[in-house]
Amino acid sequence: MRISSSIRAAGRLAIVLALAGSVLGIFAESADAQEGRRRRTGQDARPIELTPEQVTQITKVANDRRLNSDDLIAAAKTFMPSGRHDEYVLFSSGGQCGQVFAIGVPSMRLLRSIAVFTPESWQGYGFAGDADPVTESLKINGYPVLWGDTHHPALSETKGDYDGEFLFIGDKANARVAVIDLRDWETKQIVKNPLTISDHGAAFVTPNTDYVIEGGQYATVLGYGYAPPEDYKKSYRGMVTLWKFDRAKGRFDVPNSFALELPPYWQDLADAGKNASDGFFFINSFNVEMATGGVEKGNPPFEAGASKRDMDYLHIIDWKKAEAAFKAGKAKPINGFPVLMLDTLIADGILYFAPEPKSPHGVDVTPNGQFMVVAGKLDPHVTVYSIEKIKAAIASGKRAGSDEYGVPILDFDSVVETQVELGLGPLHTQFDDKGYAYTSLFLDSAVARWTLGGEYAKLNPEQPWKLVTKTPVHYNIGHLCAAEGDTVSPDGRFLVSMSKWSVDRFLPTGPLLPQNFQLIDIAATGTAMPVIYDSPIGVGEPHYAQMIKADKLKTWLVYPEIGWNPHTQKLDPNAPKKGDEGVTRQGNKVLVKMTAVRSHFFPEHVEVNEGDEVTWRITAIETAQDATHGFCIGGYNINLSLEPGEYTEFRFIADRPGTYPFYCTEFCSALHLEMMGYFHVKPKTPVAAAQAIAPGTDSR
Amino acid sequence: MRISSSIRAAGRLAIVLALAGSVLGIFAESADAQEGRRRRTGQDARPIELTPEQVTQITKVANDRRLNSDDLIAAAKTFMPSGRHDEYVLFSSGGQCGQVFAIGVPSMRLLRSIAVFTPESWQGYGFAGDADPVTESLKINGYPVLWGDTHHPALSETKGDYDGEFLFIGDKANARVAVIDLRDWETKQIVKNPLTISDHGAAFVTPNTDYVIEGGQYATVLGYGYAPPEDYKKSYRGMVTLWKFDRAKGRFDVPNSFALELPPYWQDLADAGKNASDGFFFINSFNVEMATGGVEKGNPPFEAGASKRDMDYLHIIDWKKAEAAFKAGKAKPINGFPVLMLDTLIADGILYFAPEPKSPHGVDVTPNGQFMVVAGKLDPHVTVYSIEKIKAAIASGKRAGSDEYGVPILDFDSVVETQVELGLGPLHTQFDDKGYAYTSLFLDSAVARWTLGGEYAKLNPEQPWKLVTKTPVHYNIGHLCAAEGDTVSPDGRFLVSMSKWSVDRFLPTGPLLPQNFQLIDIAATGTAMPVIYDSPIGVGEPHYAQMIKADKLKTWLVYPEIGWNPHTQKLDPNAPKKGDEGVTRQGNKVLVKMTAVRSHFFPEHVEVNEGDEVTWRITAIETAQDATHGFCIGGYNINLSLEPGEYTEFRFIADRPGTYPFYCTEFCSALHLEMMGYFHVKPKTPVAAAQAIAPGTDSR
Repeated sequence: MRISSSIRAAGRLAIVLALAGSVLGIFAESADAQEGRRRRTGQDARPIELTPEQVTQITKVANDRRLNSDDLIAAAKTFMPSGRHDEYVLFSSGGQCGQVFAIGVPSMRLLRSIAVFTPESWQGYGFAGDADPVTESLKINGYPVLWGDTHHPALSETKGDYDGEFLFIGDKANARVAVIDLRDWETKQIVKNPLTISDHGAAFVTPNTDYVIEGGQYATVLGYGYAPPEDYKKSYRGMVTLWKFDRAKGRFDVPNSFALELPPYWQDLADAGKNASDGFFFINSFNVEMATGGVEKGNPPFEAGASKRDMDYLHIIDWKKAEAAFKAGKAKPINGFPVLMLDTLIADGILYFAPEPKSPHGVDVTPNGQFMVVAGKLDPHVTVYSIEKIKAAIASGKRAGSDEYGVPILDFDSVVETQVELGLGPLHTQFDDKGYAYTSLFLDSAVARWTLGGEYAKLNPEQPWKLVTKTPVHYNIGHLCAAEGDTVSPDGRFLVSMSKWSVDRFLPTGPLLPQNFQLIDIAATGTAMPVIYDSPIGVGEPHYAQMIKADKLKTWLVYPEIGWNPHTQKLDPNAPKKGDEGVTRQGNKVLVKMTAVRSHFFPEHVEVNEGDEVTWRITAIETAQDATHGFCIGGYNINLSLEPGEYTEFRFIADRPGTYPFYCTEFCSALHLEMMGYFHVKPKTPVAAAQAIAPGTDSR
Repeated sequence: MRISSSIRAAGRLAIVLALAGSVLGIFAESADAQEGRRRRTGQDARPIELTPEQVTQITKVANDRRLNSDDLIAAAKTFMPSGRHDEYVLFSSGGQCGQVFAIGVPSMRLLRSIAVFTPESWQGYGFAGDADPVTESLKINGYPVLWGDTHHPALSETKGDYDGEFLFIGDKANARVAVIDLRDWETKQIVKNPLTISDHGAAFVTPNTDYVIEGGQYATVLGYGYAPPEDYKKSYRGMVTLWKFDRAKGRFDVPNSFALELPPYWQDLADAGKNASDGFFFINSFNVEMATGGVEKGNPPFEAGASKRDMDYLHIIDWKKAEAAFKAGKAKPINGFPVLMLDTLIADGILYFAPEPKSPHGVDVTPNGQFMVVAGKLDPHVTVYSIEKIKAAIASGKRAGSDEYGVPILDFDSVVETQVELGLGPLHTQFDDKGYAYTSLFLDSAVARWTLGGEYAKLNPEQPWKLVTKTPVHYNIGHLCAAEGDTVSPDGRFLVSMSKWSVDRFLPTGPLLPQNFQLIDIAATGTAMPVIYDSPIGVGEPHYAQMIKADKLKTWLVYPEIGWNPHTQKLDPNAPKKGDEGVTRQGNKVLVKMTAVRSHFFPEHVEVNEGDEVTWRITAIETAQDATHGFCIGGYNINLSLEPGEYTEFRFIADRPGTYPFYCTEFCSALHLEMMGYFHVKPKTPVAAAQAIAPGTDSR
C-alpha cells in the first residue's frame, strides 16, 4: 500500500489541528476578512454609485428572474449581507405548536424557536429523565399536558417601553402563563390558572410590569367546576387574572396574585392603559348574547348566536382599585385562589362596561394612553374611546343602566371620541411614530392606515381620524405588529402582517399550509405602504407578536460561570468540576458526575446494574460562544442541550439492560462523531439479550 | 345610545359577509390582480430596463443600508415577489429536534416542518388521545421514546433520479427509519431496528428504491445485548440493514428486509452505486483501531484512540449478492431479524474492504456511478475510487490480506483512481452538471470546487482532478447539498452549505445558537462561486439534505375525498358524514360522531359521565385549499389538525370532571373564535369542583 509521506504528514497535521481546533476553538478566518467586516457591520462602507456594468448585471439577474424595479427595491430593503444583524427582533407566538419564535426584521428570517408548552428535543426541553423540571411544570392535576396554544406574547415594560428582560406568553387551550428569561431565551416558570380550563387574552402587561394580565375567553364554571349548559347564566363565568411579577426573582409572585370574576361574555383581547390611562386596563367581549349554541338540538350554532347583537361590552377595569380591594382582604377563594367577586367590583367602582360594536377583537391603547381603539370585527369601523371621557363619565355618576349582573354601563356617546370606517373585518390595531394607526381587515384581506386625532394630529399633514390607504395582504390577516408598536414610543418603519391563509403564496406543502408573514414598509407618509417580503411560517400558527429594537436585548452569549444551572439561574454546587468526575454507588443508587469538553465526555464508560436508580450530572466545560454540546442516551428518551458553562442533572431508572452508546448530539468539533461513550446496563440474568423487539413492528 | 342606522346596516352586511365568506371561502381579491399575477408567475413579465430614477432609488436604499453591488445582485438572485414559488425544495434533516424541514430555494425560506420522531402539536402529531397511532409508533419495547436525531433524508429514486414520491429518514439516537409520503407530507411508518441501539447512515436508497439502507455507527452487542468493553472485539459488532420498500403500499416490506453483520469499526456514511456501480453500495468507517476509550482509566479518550491510524476501511458491498444470499436462506436470526453473518459475507464475496484515509466522513458516488469520492476528514485529500478498478481487483483474486475478522482487503493502489488535495477537514461531496465536484472543508470552513476526471473531463475547460477554488463559509461546514446533487443528473445552479457554527452571523439568541445555511451560486464555471444568502435554522441542527426540483412533487392540495384517513391513506367507513352526527352510549362507552365546517362543530355540546370511555370521530367537511380546522380539548392533551377532507378518531377516558370548552385551533374564518363547543364531564359525586389545583404551583 503506497501512502506518500506527504499524505502521512498532512494527516498528522490535520489531526493535530483538529484536536487543537477542538480544544481552542480555532477555525480558519475567511480570506476576505475586510470585506467580511463591511458586510457584517456596515462600517467602513462607502456610499456606492452603480457603474453601467453593475446596472447591466443587476438588470440581467432581474430579467432572468422576471423581477421589476419594485422587486429590486424590496429585495434591497430586506437582504442581509452575511453576518449583518437584523435591527429588530419580532417575538411571535407559535400558536398551537406551543412555542415562541424570534424572527429578525427586516430579513424576516427565523432566528430561534423557544420551547414553552411543548417539549422540544433540540433545546433539551422535556427530555431530562424522570422528574424533569420541564415535564413536571407541564402537568395539570398530575396529568401531563404536553402542548399549548400560544397566542399573545408580551415583552416586559418599564415606563411603558420594552426593557428587553422578560417575555410572557399564555397557553389558550390550558390556561397557563409562562415566563421566558431573555438573558438565555429559556422558559423559567409556568403557572396554571386554577380558575379556568382555557383563556385567551394572555399575556398583557401593565406599564412597569407590576402585573401580567391573563384574560379568559370561553366561560366556564370557575374552579374547574361542572354545570350543565342550562345553568349558563347562573353558573358560568368569565375571569381575568392579574399575576404579580417579581422582577428581581424573574418569577410570578403567586401569593400576591388575584383574579376578577366577570360575567360569561367571552372576553377577548386586552390592553393595559399607560400615561393618561395608567391604572386602567381594557378587555373586549363578543358573546354578551350569552348564546349557548346547541346546533344538534336545532338551536342556532354559536357562530350565529354569539353574533346577533349590534353591541357587546368593552370592560373597563381600574386595576389599582382592584389591587387595593385585594390587599384589603375583599377577595374570596375559589379553588384556593383569591377572586374579587362581581359585587365587590361593582361596589368598589372597579369594573365598568361601555357598549362596543360588534363582537370586536382587539382593543389597543394609543401610545400616549389617551385613546382606546376597538376593532369592530363584524362592524366595519374602529371605535375610538377617550380616557378623559371615560373618567368624566365615571365621575359624573351618569349610567346607561346596568347589565343583568349589576355591572354599570357607561353611555356610548359619552365615552366615544369617534368612529372611523375602515372596511370589512377590523381585528387589531398598531401605531407608529407619525400619528398613524394601522388596523388589520380580515375580510378585506388588507392593512388599513388611518390617522389618529387629538395630540397626534400635528404629527402628519393628513386630516385626523381618516382612512388614508389600504394595502392588500395575502390572505386574511389576523394580527399585525409594528416596530415597538405596543409601547409609549413606537418606532414606525416596519409592520408585519400576520395572515392566516397563505393559499397560493408558496409551493404546496400538502393539505396543511404555512401561515404568511408579510413585511410592510411603513416609513413613508401618505399612501405608499408596500409589502416588501413574504415569509412562510413553517410550523405552528402565530397569532400576535411584538417587535423590539435588537439593541435593547441583553442576551448572554454563554452562561456566566461554568456550572450554571439554567433552572435556578445561578451557579450550582452540584455541578461536577474537572477532576471531580466519576461513578459512585450506594446500594442501588448510582451517581454519575461527568464533564463535557471538546471532544470527549469524562468518563467514557458508565456501568450500572439493571434496576439501578441513576442520578447523572454533567457540566459543559466550555467558555467559547457556540461551543454547545448535546448528550443523549438512545432508547431512554434522554437528550440534553449543554450550552457553554451549563450544568444539568437528570435521573432515571436503568430498567432496560443492554449496551447503550451515548454521544454528543450537537456538532461541536472536527472529532464530534468520536465524542461518545458507552452506558452499560448489566442485565440481572446472565442472558445477554433484552426482551426481543418484534422487527419492524408497524404500529401505523 | 345612538347607533346610526348606517352602522347597523353595515354591521348586518358585515355579518352576512362573514358567514358567507366563512361558508364559501370567498375573500376579497387584491386590487392589483394583474400585477399580482406577474409577481406570482413571472408570466407577462416584460424585460425591464432601469430608468435613471429607478437606479437612483435602488442606490439610495443600498446606501441607506450600506449595501454594495454584490449585495444587490445577491438580493436579486434570492428575492421572491409575493406569490412567486421557489424552484427547488430542500428537504433537510432537523437533527436532534427529530423533524424534517422543507426549505424553498433560492429564497431559503422555511416552507414547512414535517414531524417525524418528535410529537408536534400544530400538525396534531402525537396528540390524538390514548392509543394514538403516532405515539404507539414511537414506543420502543413498550417505552415511549418521543424524540429522534434525524440525520440523512433520502428521496425515493427511480433510475437514479428523484421521483418526488417518498422521503426516508433515520433516527440516529434510537436506530429507527421513517417513511414520509410526499403526497400529504406526513410520516406514515416508523420501523425500529431490532439489532442496534443507534445508527447513523440512514437513510440512503438504491437507484430504484428497492432497498433503503440503514447503516450503523457506534458498535454494540447486536440484538440489544450486553457485554463489557473488554469483550469489544469479540462481542461488539456493526451492522447495515437493508429495508425492502414496497412502493405500491408506500411502506417497508419488513419480512423481506435483512441485515449484514459488520466488524465493530464505527461505520459512517453510505451511498449506493448507480449505472456503472449499480448493485454495490459503499460505507465509510472511522474506528478500525477498535479503540474503546476509557479516559477515566487513564486510556486515551475515544477522540484520540479512534484517530491513530492513517487508514480506515471503505466497505464495498455487493447488495445483489447479499439479496441472493438472503433469499437462499443463509441469514441467521438475531432478535428475530435475519442477519447475514460475516462468514457468509466473506464466503459469498459480498463484502470487501479497501483502505481509506483517515477517519473519513462521506463517500459519494459520482452521477455516472463511475467513481466513489471519499472525504478524508482527518486527511486533507479526497480519495477517488474507480468502480472498474474495484471490479477488476475483486475479479483478479489479488488481495492485500484480510482484517482480523477475515474480510478480504483490496490493494489501495489497485482501486484508487487518484487523490486530490483540497484542504483541512474534507467531509462530504456533491456534484453538478458541469463536471465539477464540491467538497465541504470543516476546518478550513470552506467549500472546495474541483474537477472530476474520466468522462467528466469534457464538460468544462479545466484540468481534471484539480482544485479550482474555495469559497469561505461561516462557519465550519458539515454537509452540503447541490440541486439534485445525489442523482444521476444533477442540475447545478445552487448549492447549500450547512454550517455547524453560526457564531456572529446572526443576532444573539442566548447561549444556544442557530445553524447557518448559506446558499452558494454555482451556476458560473471557474472561480466565481459566491455566497448569496445566509439563512439561520431556528430550531434543530440539520445534518444532510437533498434538493429536488419542485415540479417533480405531486403534492395534494387537499385530501382526495371527504372522510379521508391519513394513516391508511384512504377513505374511512367510520368517518362521520353530514347528517350523521351525534353522541351515542353503550354502558360507559360513548361514541361521538362530529363534523367540522366553517364555522361550527356539530354537535356543539357533548356530555359524558366521569370515567366514560370516549371514542370521538371528526370529519372536516371542507374542500377548499387551506380551509384547515384544528380541534382541541384543553386539559386532556388533545389537539388535532383537520385538513380539508380529513377524518380523525381519538380515544380517551374522561376521568377529569368539569366543563371543558373545545375549540378550533387553526384560524379558519371570520367567526373562528366562535367555532367552539363544550365537553361536559359530569362528576361522579355531586360536588362540582374537581380536585383543587394548588394555584401557581411552581415546579421550576
